[in-house]
Amino acid sequence: MALEKSPLAPERFPDLPAVGGVQIAGRACGLKRSGAKDLMLAEMAPGTTVAGVFTRSQCQSAPVDWCRAALPGGRARAIVCNSGNANAFTGKAGDTTAERTASAAAALFGCAEREVFLASTGVIGVPVGPDHIGDCLPGLARHLSAGAWQDAAEAIMTTDTFPKGAGAQTAIGGTPVSIAGFAKGSGMIAPDMATMLGFVFTDADIPAPLLQKLLARSNDRSFNAITVDGDTSTSDTVLLCATGAAGNAPPADLRAVRDFERALDSVMIDLAQQIVRDGEGASKFVTVNVSGAASARAARRIGLTIANSPLVKTAIAGEDANWGRIVMAVGKAGEKADRDRLSIAIGGVTITENGQLVPGYDETPVARHMQGAEIDIDVDIGIGRGRATVWTCDLTHGYISINADYRS
Amino acid sequence: MALEKSPLAPERFPDLPAVGGVQIAGRACGLKRSGAKDLMLAEMAPGTTVAGVFTRSQCQSAPVDWCRAALPGGRARAIVCNSGNANAFTGKAGDTTAERTASAAAALFGCAEREVFLASTGVIGVPVGPDHIGDCLPGLARHLSAGAWQDAAEAIMTTDTFPKGAGAQTAIGGTPVSIAGFAKGSGMIAPDMATMLGFVFTDADIPAPLLQKLLARSNDRSFNAITVDGDTSTSDTVLLCATGAAGNAPPADLRAVRDFERALDSVMIDLAQQIVRDGEGASKFVTVNVSGAASARAARRIGLTIANSPLVKTAIAGEDANWGRIVMAVGKAGEKADRDRLSIAIGGVTITENGQLVPGYDETPVARHMQGAEIDIDVDIGIGRGRATVWTCDLTHGYISINADYRS
Repeated sequence: MALEKSPLAPERFPDLPAVGGVQIAGRACGLKRSGAKDLMLAEMAPGTTVAGVFTRSQCQSAPVDWCRAALPGGRARAIVCNSGNANAFTGKAGDTTAERTASAAAALFGCAEREVFLASTGVIGVPVGPDHIGDCLPGLARHLSAGAWQDAAEAIMTTDTFPKGAGAQTAIGGTPVSIAGFAKGSGMIAPDMATMLGFVFTDADIPAPLLQKLLARSNDRSFNAITVDGDTSTSDTVLLCATGAAGNAPPADLRAVRDFERALDSVMIDLAQQIVRDGEGASKFVTVNVSGAASARAARRIGLTIANSPLVKTAIAGEDANWGRIVMAVGKAGEKADRDRLSIAIGGVTITENGQLVPGYDETPVARHMQGAEIDIDVDIGIGRGRATVWTCDLTHGYISINADYRS
Repeated sequence: MALEKSPLAPERFPDLPAVGGVQIAGRACGLKRSGAKDLMLAEMAPGTTVAGVFTRSQCQSAPVDWCRAALPGGRARAIVCNSGNANAFTGKAGDTTAERTASAAAALFGCAEREVFLASTGVIGVPVGPDHIGDCLPGLARHLSAGAWQDAAEAIMTTDTFPKGAGAQTAIGGTPVSIAGFAKGSGMIAPDMATMLGFVFTDADIPAPLLQKLLARSNDRSFNAITVDGDTSTSDTVLLCATGAAGNAPPADLRAVRDFERALDSVMIDLAQQIVRDGEGASKFVTVNVSGAASARAARRIGLTIANSPLVKTAIAGEDANWGRIVMAVGKAGEKADRDRLSIAIGGVTITENGQLVPGYDETPVARHMQGAEIDIDVDIGIGRGRATVWTCDLTHGYISINADYRS
């Protein structure tokens, strides 16, 4: 089944900066029946530090296990990511495939196996031959180049309808540094899994512990703040690699990388939003701003509850300014709320204030806003100072068609 | 919009036993524009004890507030429930309507206001005139009768496509007692709310504290074990009234009401399953049995995570035995699980065992099972003795149509 490109897709893949010390490639290696690109290889210069965040699933894939074990080393020389097969729920065979793939990459680049990071996305429960991916690596390595971002982004797609990339330029201690990354996610078709993968590279010199802190913070504001259907993959992985090629003085703490953190946020949020824009069946991009919650954590939980509510999402699909369903979602979030302090605005128009419809509420401008492709929902809980922003898409017939009507 | 009757509906409303000390009525009082029945009144004999469980929503309706305050009294002489308006998110005006309604019923039956219990379901955010419902009560009271169960069940419907009733006969200490009840739920249409209401009556003599214990236990195995879309209403309410007309010796503890508890479970589970069978757009009734979890609570959370997963529900709609999505849901439930011990069966056919596809797995019988209207999913977590059963329906184009395509 060929999926049509999402109506919310950006016009084209962005121009991304080269990142010193990083070479990438994306080619076909026979894991996708269609013959499309399905293997991505990234080679990083010796000394590259790495940070990672992974799915919280209790049924995680073999590559996630591998990366978790490798991460404490703090160094990465290569990333190998295939699409077409998730290498999840494949038992010991899956572990063996992961080990052999890492071993092949380590031999290729003359590094330790624990400096190789792995990710897989696609069909689950079907073992990959132990050497299938490893055997493809030498051929793929011949295509490594500094500018192959789009090839790499395409090679990790499953049912994504467009490749996702983002980049930024910033500085650390006056030295210019670059950031570039790509991601995939939110497409799935039986029996594939929805998996979110993100790979971000910088030529900055940043020690691994600080890099991990930066990634965790930024991930919270980006990939952890999006939802398409609330389902969690066995394989979600985000890796951030810092090659040090820019030659900046290594920063000591978060204060020394404030500009870098802002730039990293912009790249991560851009990638995360592109995943939402490629949400299955999405026809509208929705921003939910929650303020006045008991804490930032409470605000995010309320925001995600609104963003995950099938009733809210179908109302948006129907262009219906159904604020009652937002009240329902706030109520069920399990966080502190007071019915009589709740204020809701859609498209900047206040609808309820202090727990009641505003006097003389006119739905006309709100109804007009609902007809657009970008929907803004602002909810003020009215009890504290916690804030969060969450992004999602609507729930349409397209989602049902993609996930129910087609058989693999 | 007229909804077609669910394909999973029972053939007809059941014959329910009369319950000594209970008279009911259901009529139109002008809250539904269609002119359909929208007001239910139940009168119980003096001395009737009451138990109640309510929504955990932080944005609960005015009637829920009223019931919570009245419940500690432990006595009920009347229940008033309207459909067509939820009296939720209506601020002080909503509280006034609740008070005035209770006051009118108390005057009618010569009881305390706190012996009157209230529920409302329908549009939210639109105040009801303070005396509208109370003024209808004397007229409605003229129609009170012991056998009007179906009228009562119809009067509390919103977008339900069939009225829901269930009954049982049992005994306490050798004295025969009857149970009968009715419920509504799972239909909703903008800007209505999905609300689950259940009212169950028995002629048994059971002290209020024991009655509350019985209701809480049974509710956990019935209404708390179903899900249509994971959304929680502002108004969910289940009330259990015991009139004492059967003349049994009042039981001292749970051991003295074992048979009664089983009968109550059968009524509550029957009503809960009828709500699932009327799930919006439902084409399949799904039973999820979870065993081998760390605890019963963990088993239920895993079961509900499977039952709420849009990916699992759309796979079922598509008659696709997509066990990979069940693995995903187990993984994301947040409860202890071990990928390498997980076993999954569909329609009684084991698909995975110890974290891998069973050798020579043949999908044919499973595919045949998926084509039926009753789907059974068994998941064994393999780490403990916790068990739970959860019921749900599939997620179809019908759900999107009901919630997105039609405007109020």
